[in-house]
Amino acid sequence: MIFARVVGTVVSTNKDEKLVGKKLLLVQPVEIDGTVKGNPLVSIDAVGAGEGELVLLVQGSSARQTSITEGHPVDCTICAIVDYIEKGGKTVFEKAKDTAYSVK
Amino acid sequence: MIFARVVGTVVSTNKDEKLVGKKLLLVQPVEIDGTVKGNPLVSIDAVGAGEGELVLLVQGSSARQTSITEGHPVDCTICAIVDYIEKGGKTVFEKAKDTAYSVK
Amino acid sequence: MIFARVVGTVVSTNKDEKLVGKKLLLVQPVEIDGTVKGNPLVSIDAVGAGEGELVLLVQGSSARQTSITEGHPVDCTICAIVDYIEKGGKTVFEKAKDTAYSVK
Amino acid sequence: MIFARVVGTVVSTNKDEKLVGKKLLLVQPVEIDGTVKGNPLVSIDAVGAGEGELVLLVQGSSARQTSITEGHPVDCTICAIVDYIEKGGKTVFEKAKDTAYSVK
Amino acid sequence: MIFARVVGTVVSTNKDEKLVGKKLLLVQPVEIDGTVKGNPLVSIDAVGAGEGELVLLVQGSSARQTSITEGHPVDCTICAIVDYIEKGGKTVFEKAKDTAYSVK
Repeated sequence: MIFARVVGTVVSTNKDEKLVGKKLLLVQPVEIDGTVKGNPLVSIDAVGAGEGELVLLVQGSSARQTSITEGHPVDCTICAIVDYIEKGGKTVFEKAKDTAYSVK
Repeated sequence: MIFARVVGTVVSTNKDEKLVGKKLLLVQPVEIDGTVKGNPLVSIDAVGAGEGELVLLVQGSSARQTSITEGHPVDCTICAIVDYIEKGGKTVFEKAKDTAYSVK
Repeated sequence: MIFARVVGTVVSTNKDEKLVGKKLLLVQPVEIDGTVKGNPLVSIDAVGAGEGELVLLVQGSSARQTSITEGHPVDCTICAIVDYIEKGGKTVFEKAKDTAYSVK
Repeated sequence: MIFARVVGTVVSTNKDEKLVGKKLLLVQPVEIDGTVKGNPLVSIDAVGAGEGELVLLVQGSSARQTSITEGHPVDCTICAIVDYIEKGGKTVFEKAKDTAYSVK
Repeated sequence: MIFARVVGTVVSTNKDEKLVGKKLLLVQPVEIDGTVKGNPLVSIDAVGAGEGELVLLVQGSSARQTSITEGHPVDCTICAIVDYIEKGGKTVFEKAKDTAYSVK
């Protein structure tokens, strides 16, 4: 899984029938220190993530292993909202102190 | 899923039997601001996309999860036509105002 | 799917039992304008492609969705021979006029 | 499979139901000589790896082929802890002499 | 499939139960002319390849389509040992004359 920020939404009225009723979120892959990494992706959300939150993306066929995405034409799903990241014994990310959190 | 523009078509009379009758579209991956990103791909269309439209591509095994592509040798499918993209609370793409829309 | 040229063959007497009797083709991914892109891959052929021809490669699990490759340890299959490519209303590739066609 | 170091943990209280009770490890892909390669990933652990250990990551749908990850929305799993690497007849990595081992 | 050289072995006593008894080979992706390409991977061997041999790697879910790897947490399998490569009508690799063959 990789880290990403929820940065927006994508609206589509003409989409595959299995995607009807699914919210499409715009997600920006990021490094742990917050640096943007590559271009935004479009993801389905399995956990109720909000804009600005740091999340984990699961990709490929594994993106279809949630109850929300099973059997759907989806290759990217938000499977977790990150609370803390510990690296080398130190807390390098803490959601409550996330300065980048209020994106809007 | 990633963003792409429909930029043309690919004609093949000699193709796998499961692809017979399927239209092959030439799609150019793009960034949200319209910048071209990488080389064109060839995609099956599950939603009736037209040339110039901004669409979402689903790739890998997930490209086979539509009623049109199930069980087919297809690793890239157009699963949605984009109407709006909102990023950071602002509309950054709107199909009705899409200046790049009339490609032909 | 991506574009590639058939540029040769790979001979192997010691290969997985499911690959016995399958021809292994050397294929070079290319851009639409003919520019070489990355290193050659080895592909199974589902459509009887000949050396020099511009073809479409399907990759990953989707490469196993032809009658020739089903259940095989194959991650790259030629699924179509390209006759024409139209981009922005213009024909940018035509097999009959393909100057790169007689590779040998 | 690729080489990675276990460098930390990721805590998430809001995650897909199938991930509840699974430990999420922060893993840094590395080259054999220890050089960092790309950004950290988040992985499930199938073998009880500890921080600092050199491990093998299996990715994609294959990451779901362990008894711990079967059917889960997981695209990266630690499937082995590396004891030795031999290259060209020489031992180029030995866990007991791993100077990078005590990360904390 | 891609080309690689078998360059060594990886020893692991603590690995997923399905990998017990499987030999883990260190393989270096290469170009046809022998140039090293990217970092080494770790692969399962379905054909009895020896150190120094030029082989074909099958990746992703297709790596699990051999009798040796079916259902295993494996994303890279050696599926063939290369005898000859012909490109543009010329033999560009011949195992019997492979000067890089005696790596040890």
